[in-house]
Amino acid sequence: MARRDRGSPEGRKGGAGVKLYDMALAPNPRRVRIFLAEKGIEIPRVEIDIQKGENLEPAYLAVNPRGVVPTLVLDNGTILDESIAICRYFEALQPEPNLFGRDPLEIARVESWQRRIEFEGLFNIAAAFRNSRPAYADRAAPGAGPPTPQIPELAERGLLLARSFLDTMEQRFAQSPFVAGDRYTVADITAIVCLDFARWVGLKAEQAHPRVAAWQREMRKRPSTAA
Amino acid sequence: MARRDRGSPEGRKGGAGVKLYDMALAPNPRRVRIFLAEKGIEIPRVEIDIQKGENLEPAYLAVNPRGVVPTLVLDNGTILDESIAICRYFEALQPEPNLFGRDPLEIARVESWQRRIEFEGLFNIAAAFRNSRPAYADRAAPGAGPPTPQIPELAERGLLLARSFLDTMEQRFAQSPFVAGDRYTVADITAIVCLDFARWVGLKAEQAHPRVAAWQREMRKRPSTAA
Repeated sequence: MARRDRGSPEGRKGGAGVKLYDMALAPNPRRVRIFLAEKGIEIPRVEIDIQKGENLEPAYLAVNPRGVVPTLVLDNGTILDESIAICRYFEALQPEPNLFGRDPLEIARVESWQRRIEFEGLFNIAAAFRNSRPAYADRAAPGAGPPTPQIPELAERGLLLARSFLDTMEQRFAQSPFVAGDRYTVADITAIVCLDFARWVGLKAEQAHPRVAAWQREMRKRPSTAA
Repeated sequence: MARRDRGSPEGRKGGAGVKLYDMALAPNPRRVRIFLAEKGIEIPRVEIDIQKGENLEPAYLAVNPRGVVPTLVLDNGTILDESIAICRYFEALQPEPNLFGRDPLEIARVESWQRRIEFEGLFNIAAAFRNSRPAYADRAAPGAGPPTPQIPELAERGLLLARSFLDTMEQRFAQSPFVAGDRYTVADITAIVCLDFARWVGLKAEQAHPRVAAWQREMRKRPSTAA
């Protein structure tokens, strides 16, 4: 692990053998990539194609028996395999730039929005996606758990609730320039990933959501968004 | 807001008008109550009966238009309406006893387990519960969003995955006395609330899960668990 522009002691704590198992197209790994880009931290990555089922092959299950991506492997072999937990690890290791909030109220607002976007946005879009795409016919729930057949009604409900979520974000951006207040935080990372993922199920901010569209254009100006 | 045994300046920051909208039987409000009990913080509470739909009545929607519980109202009228965001607010306000982790790795482990128990446990149990109980016939998704009819197949899938989650916890307690390591954290709070909620859909740690059952007995010895 190396910081791009300066070698802080914190930046080196992760050690030379740190590795991130990643998937370019999947939303959760992208959250970690954007987060690391905002921190200026670079880590070697290994691409795993979930769509082809590489995450459930023996080679990957030997790295992570849960078969989920992203997975961060530390020097000593410890694995962290949950996207926001990985982000919090790096936030604690290298606190600046701060992305999870500075005072009790900001910390709570960031957490509240980041989770709300997951529960009302990401999860519903994922439900619409995984319960309709042929590639996920028998694994509508992620990871290496029991087989889960798709439920078409759940794909429909996911779409309905994800549409309602777009309205929520439109209202939010009428109050606030960024998701959790007046500056960029991890809640914006979750939101941009969520809104880009929404296109996969045919949902897009257009005439009805001008503020969401404007915020998305702002996000595209940040180099991290391309991560 | 008052600390039970000592009046720290942090403890008073929340101010005299702080109020928690609560529901005794619901899992998410209980997480906040246990958390506050562990911190020794007391806050006036107002009971809202979700089962009877009080959360969707005008009086409550005037407090929180989202119609969700728990909702913390601060002195200046600011509301926080997400259980873990409320917990993080109090953790930042009054850091001891620490419940979210002390160093980067512990912080990541706590977050990882606390979220995993939500995604694999709580959400699946909630799916089984809300998609089968007559009281939630047209509101299988929580809060004041669009009406969502129940999906019986989703109740079934929820049960299947929640059973698999019990096995995961049994394995976990073979490695570790507490959920996230060698001491009690918010991950144990999420776990005990989740496992008690599981009984509502007929899932119980028994012969097949002796370690889970033993950990539950330990948890019952903590006064906070009764909160």
